[in-house]
Parts: sequence; structure tokens; C-alpha cells
Amino acid sequence: MISCSLERLNEKIETFRKFGDTGNGGVTRFSLSEAALLARKEFKKRMEAIGAEVVTDDMANMYATIPGTQDLPAIMSGSHLDSVRQGGNYDGVLGVLAAMEAAETIVKEKIPHRHPITVVVWTNEEGARFEPAMMSSGVICGKFDKAEMLSSEAKDMPGYTFGEALEKSGFQGKEKNRMTPAGYAALVELHIEQGPVLETEGIDIGIVEGVCGMINYEFTFTGQAGHAGTTPMKYRKDALYAAIKTIQYLHDEMDKLDSKLVYTTGKISAHPNIHTIIPEEVKFTLDARHQDPKVLDQVLEIIKKIPGEVEKCQFRCEEAWSRKTVGFTSELVDYVEESVKEYGYSGGRIYSGPGHDAQFVIDMIPTAMIFVPSAGGHSHCELEYTPTEKCLKGANVLMRTLLLIDQ
Amino acid sequence: MISCSLERLNEKIETFRKFGDTGNGGVTRFSLSEAALLARKEFKKRMEAIGAEVVTDDMANMYATIPGTQDLPAIMSGSHLDSVRQGGNYDGVLGVLAAMEAAETIVKEKIPHRHPITVVVWTNEEGARFEPAMMSSGVICGKFDKAEMLSSEAKDMPGYTFGEALEKSGFQGKEKNRMTPAGYAALVELHIEQGPVLETEGIDIGIVEGVCGMINYEFTFTGQAGHAGTTPMKYRKDALYAAIKTIQYLHDEMDKLDSKLVYTTGKISAHPNIHTIIPEEVKFTLDARHQDPKVLDQVLEIIKKIPGEVEKCQFRCEEAWSRKTVGFTSELVDYVEESVKEYGYSGGRIYSGPGHDAQFVIDMIPTAMIFVPSAGGHSHCELEYTPTEKCLKGANVLMRTLLLIDQ
Repeated sequence: MISCSLERLNEKIETFRKFGDTGNGGVTRFSLSEAALLARKEFKKRMEAIGAEVVTDDMANMYATIPGTQDLPAIMSGSHLDSVRQGGNYDGVLGVLAAMEAAETIVKEKIPHRHPITVVVWTNEEGARFEPAMMSSGVICGKFDKAEMLSSEAKDMPGYTFGEALEKSGFQGKEKNRMTPAGYAALVELHIEQGPVLETEGIDIGIVEGVCGMINYEFTFTGQAGHAGTTPMKYRKDALYAAIKTIQYLHDEMDKLDSKLVYTTGKISAHPNIHTIIPEEVKFTLDARHQDPKVLDQVLEIIKKIPGEVEKCQFRCEEAWSRKTVGFTSELVDYVEESVKEYGYSGGRIYSGPGHDAQFVIDMIPTAMIFVPSAGGHSHCELEYTPTEKCLKGANVLMRTLLLIDQ
Repeated sequence: MISCSLERLNEKIETFRKFGDTGNGGVTRFSLSEAALLARKEFKKRMEAIGAEVVTDDMANMYATIPGTQDLPAIMSGSHLDSVRQGGNYDGVLGVLAAMEAAETIVKEKIPHRHPITVVVWTNEEGARFEPAMMSSGVICGKFDKAEMLSSEAKDMPGYTFGEALEKSGFQGKEKNRMTPAGYAALVELHIEQGPVLETEGIDIGIVEGVCGMINYEFTFTGQAGHAGTTPMKYRKDALYAAIKTIQYLHDEMDKLDSKLVYTTGKISAHPNIHTIIPEEVKFTLDARHQDPKVLDQVLEIIKKIPGEVEKCQFRCEEAWSRKTVGFTSELVDYVEESVKEYGYSGGRIYSGPGHDAQFVIDMIPTAMIFVPSAGGHSHCELEYTPTEKCLKGANVLMRTLLLIDQ
């Protein structure tokens, strides 16, 4: 089996980690920032060096295409180059670098392919400076309104919009360059898992079946403030205690559901949050994810059973957002599995918890994803790490999947 | 029975509520602020009008003394004129106004008394702008170091000290004017309850036996952050869930102790407090109060039983502060009860949850306190309210207690 080059892949990772280097093992590379523009220029230079033609669309998504032997729609692979604040060197960028390495190997090894092969860079996947996340794949796949996105303001600079950043970037191209079902046959996106499952279970490659559906609720409990030293227990309406009882209830009930369900209370706040005052109002969030909509329906049933009054406090909740489960193209998922087997790697079918550009692209063209392990499950932090040997396995599976699609 | 005047007491309350009026039913009258200085001037003017001599000590505590028929130590009553931000019209100030009204009644009705009677205003009881609370009674009773107190910085203005505010106030007097056991025979402080017990149980007067001891702990749980969508439940170290389990344990165990125990988790914080991240660190406070030190020892035993690891998270806790129970002078407490009976009011023995200047004064001279009901238990807020009829009952009991001490 032809393999991508460990040395070349490593050199790519080492080069791109310099763009936005925090000096602390990670990067801060907000979309269209100076650091991100340097990374884009390096991407363009390297892709042109292996014979690719590079164009950008009106959302500055980049498409670097090496020609195929026939006049067919291109097969795409890629991800994003932007990061969160103090993010790692693998989330997003590894999907671009692995696609670059796969393309470079195909070119250097003169592997025949009928379809053109396009390495894609999606603009502003993280939404770390300009919300929302997956902004530009969202616009071209009809999920977000373009005008609204252009007016998205920088979180750190009111009045400064994504549209202005786009104009200044030098990477804004034409709308006709957008990915369309006519021009592109498929997308395969490689990404780090961002969780501990593959590493813990000793699996080389996550064969991603889809992106989990999720619900996100905010719960509010209203009690009555009172002095910690003067209010007997029997007269209290303690909003924190009501919240705690409810979180425990949610845990107890959700633990009875499918073991693949993940649920999280990540955010909690108490008002007035003074150690000598009984909390008057407490809010907390609940995020729950599962690939099967029926399981999320069961979660909703559990939420609905919370009474309007808990421990003498008023209860209300509202949905902050939700996302339906997205299933990737089964034929492509099978190609990923086949590729894993051909290389003799271990593979496991998995659903993605986080969102990815691929979940929007599937509405336009056949799509699949490949996960490689995240050391310690760390992601969105400077600790994010995947040994290059493991990245290489992902690049090989990616290359082979693109070639299987080509056949 | 001779009674204080409802009209006069009401007029006092109406006058003093103007000093620092928030326009919203309450006052903001930080110690030594312009508003507080106006209140002090009004106090001085009114006390001089009924024949009192007014002096201040080096901490600007004010002593307004009407002479007795014999050369004896004075009997004191009073409280404080400062408030918290957006506080009410009763906490502290009512104790001063009731003492003024009792003194005025004694003067106007020519009630004979052997001891001089002093109405006292303690400086900076709330500690709302310059910490700590009960600062000036604390200094003269040997609880706080004076130099340290003078260098206490304004919370809202770094570098501006209590000492500077004191010098500018025009109310700083001589150290020789301080309350001492030689010069003063006793203190009786009237205060609002700041809790719901008296109102709920239909009691006119709280006969305060002492100030509850308290312990205040901070608990910290350290788990591991992780993505809400990628970390299976079995691999999680959720610091919030560990905290919740522990708060429930504390509730369950403390509910088995004496029913007069009050305990509160008023403050909770999660880090990083993002709805899609499993909390890595959670802190919460526990405040527990009871008059019997043995009950607080039982609380400590409950805390000690928490293991070092809860739900796979590390646990640690530390005492933020504690206060021993202070018992008031039983002879004086009995006088309060006798006065309640003489007027035909209903009275109930009670312990104070919050701290008061009287708890420091008891180390110097015999001391007692009288509570009047707080509507709805509200305090330290603009809703703070006690009908003047109920304040009058307090003033009458106060006056009678002073006269019983005099005999």
C-alpha cells in the first residue's frame, strides 16, 4: 500500500503551528486574523507548488484543485484553519494538512485519478471571534443568511463586522466559485475526535457515521432571598437547593436511558451569589446529545416531568437551541471502513458530538468524516495533541477513501 | 404605663429616611458619607435640644448623654446610622431613633433616673464601604487593631482610607471619650430582627439571648474539563456533579440536627462555566449558625466525613471564618422580658443570626438586645419595613429596660 509521508506531514504540522503560536504549545488563530491569513498564504503556496489551481468564493472559502484525467466533478477534502482562543494544533488544521498530504502523495506517486481532487479550507468554522460557528459552509449550504453573517460583529470589537474583515483579507472571491453539487462529487473531512473514546479503546480510526443530535435547555428557579442567619430552614425558598434537587433528578433519570447519551450541566449561576444570602434565583444549562432522536425525545419527557414548583421555588425552562442528528452518506462511510481494513488499522464506528462543516455539506453532496484520536480527549485547549504517527494513519485512510470514491 | 410617642417616633423615622434617600423606598448611607454626616448632625442637634451633652471618641463613635441624679456610670442605648448600598430605613437607625425617643420621653415626662443615660451611635457597623463590619465598636472593645482599621481602603476607591474619611468628617474626637467599663454601666441595643420569625409567629418583641455562633466554609471540587459532546459519561470527572452530591449530603445530614440550626449555600461558581464544557472546578460556600457550640461541632463532624474524592473529583475545604456564640447578660435579658410583660406585649426568646455591635460591647460591660419584627423578614434591602406601631413597642420596652437597670 502506498503511504503518505510521515516526515512531510510532520513538517506541515510544525510549519502551521507557527501561525498564531501562543508560545505555550497552542495557537490563537481567529478566522481572517493576521495569523490566519499567513496560514492561508502558506496553504496557497504549497498547493500551487504541487500543481493545484487555487480559487476562493465570496465567503473566502478556499478551493485548491489538482486536475483529474476526466472532466468530472471534483472530490473534496479539507477542514478549517481557524482556532478558538488558545486552541490546539490539530482541531481543523489537521483536516487541511492531511488533505494536502494526501493530494501531495497522489501527485508525487503519480496515482491515477479520474476526478479532480480539491483541498478545501472553510472560513470561520469556530465562530470564536465572529459568531456563529460553521459560518461560511453554512452560507453556501443555505443554512445562514449571507447578509446577516456579513454584519456579525467581532466579540472583542463592537461595530467591526465579519464583512469588513472579509473585504480586508484579500481572500474574498466570486460567488460562482462556491462548492455546488454540479461541481463537486463528494466531501471527506478528517478531524480529531476531540474526545477520549478512540484513545481509551485503542482504536486508530473513528469511522464517523454522523453528527449527534442535541438539545440545549436553560433552567431557571426563583425562590426568595433571605439572610443566612435569620431565616429558619422551614421558611426558606432556596433556589439553589431547588436547582440541585433537579440536577440530581435529571442525572438519575437520564442514567436510565441509552449509555451512549451524553448530558452536561456546564453552566450554573446563583443570584445574588453572596455567602450569607439565600439564593433568590439560580439558572443552569442542560446539553444532551445522542444519535437517536428517540433518546432525545425521552430526555424531553424527563424535562417535562419537572413540576412548576420545586422545593417551594418557581421553575421554568426554555430551549436555547437544538440540532437534529445528521447521518453521513453510508456508501462513503463504508469506503472509510474499507480503507481502514486495507491498511490493517483498527477502526470503530462513532458519532460526532461536536458540529463540523461536513454536517452542512451533506445537504449538498455525499459526505463522510474520519476521526483520529485526541490524546487525553483534550480539545479546544493548548493540550490538544495527536502523535504524527496517528495523524498519518488518518491521512492514509483519507487518501484511500478519496481514491475509492474516484473509482 | 408611660409610653413613648408614636407621632414623635414616626417623625424621627420620616426625618432620618431622607439622609441618603435612594428615591426607591430605601437609603444608601455609607459610614461617614455626606448622607451619614447629615444624619449625625441631625442626631446631635436633636439630642442637644433635650439637654444632652454630645461627645465623640477617636473612632467618631457619638455619645449623647443626659445627666442622672447621681454620679454613676451611664446606661447606654443606641446602634448605628450607616447602611448597606440600597439598604432600608430600619437596620441600625431604628436602634438610634428608639433610644432617642426613650431618652426624650424620660426627659419630657421627667421620669427620675439615677444614672446618666447615653444614646450611642457606633461608626461603620455595616462595613459596606470600609471593611470590616462593626469596625469602631470593635476597635474600642479590643477586637480590631486601630491602625489597621484606619488604613482600610474604600471598596470603590483604592487608596482612599477610612482614616482619611474619619479626619474629614469633623466627628473624630478624643480617645478618652471612648466607652469604658468605668464610665458605662450597661448597653441595651434595639434592632430589627432581619428575619421572619417574630412576624410569622405573631410576637411583638424578640428578647435576644445572644448572637449565634457560626462557621463558614469554602468547598472546592476539582475534576476534569471535557467537551459536552465527546466525553462518554463513564469517563467524566464532573466537578459540578460532585458538588451537587455533596450539597445534598450536607442537607440530608444537617437536617437531622437541631431544628434551630440554619445553614446556607449562598455562593457557587463553576469553571469554565460554559454550557458545552464539563465543569473542571466548582466552589461553594457553607454558612451554618446555631447558639449551641455542640451543634456546630456536629456540623464540623459532617463536613469531616466528606471523602477526599467525590464522584472521581478531588475535594478540599477550608474555614473562611467562624464566630463563637455570644450570650448576653442574663440579668439584662430578664429585664427585657419583665418590661415586655409590664406592657402586656408578647415576647419570645431568640438568638440573633447576624452580628451586632452589642456582641463586642458585652466583653466590656453588661449588654442586651431587643428585636422588633421585620415585615416579610426583609433586610439589607429597600423592602425593609417595620410599622411604627411595632417600633413603638420596641421603644417602650427599651425605655423600661433602661429604667429597670437604673433601679
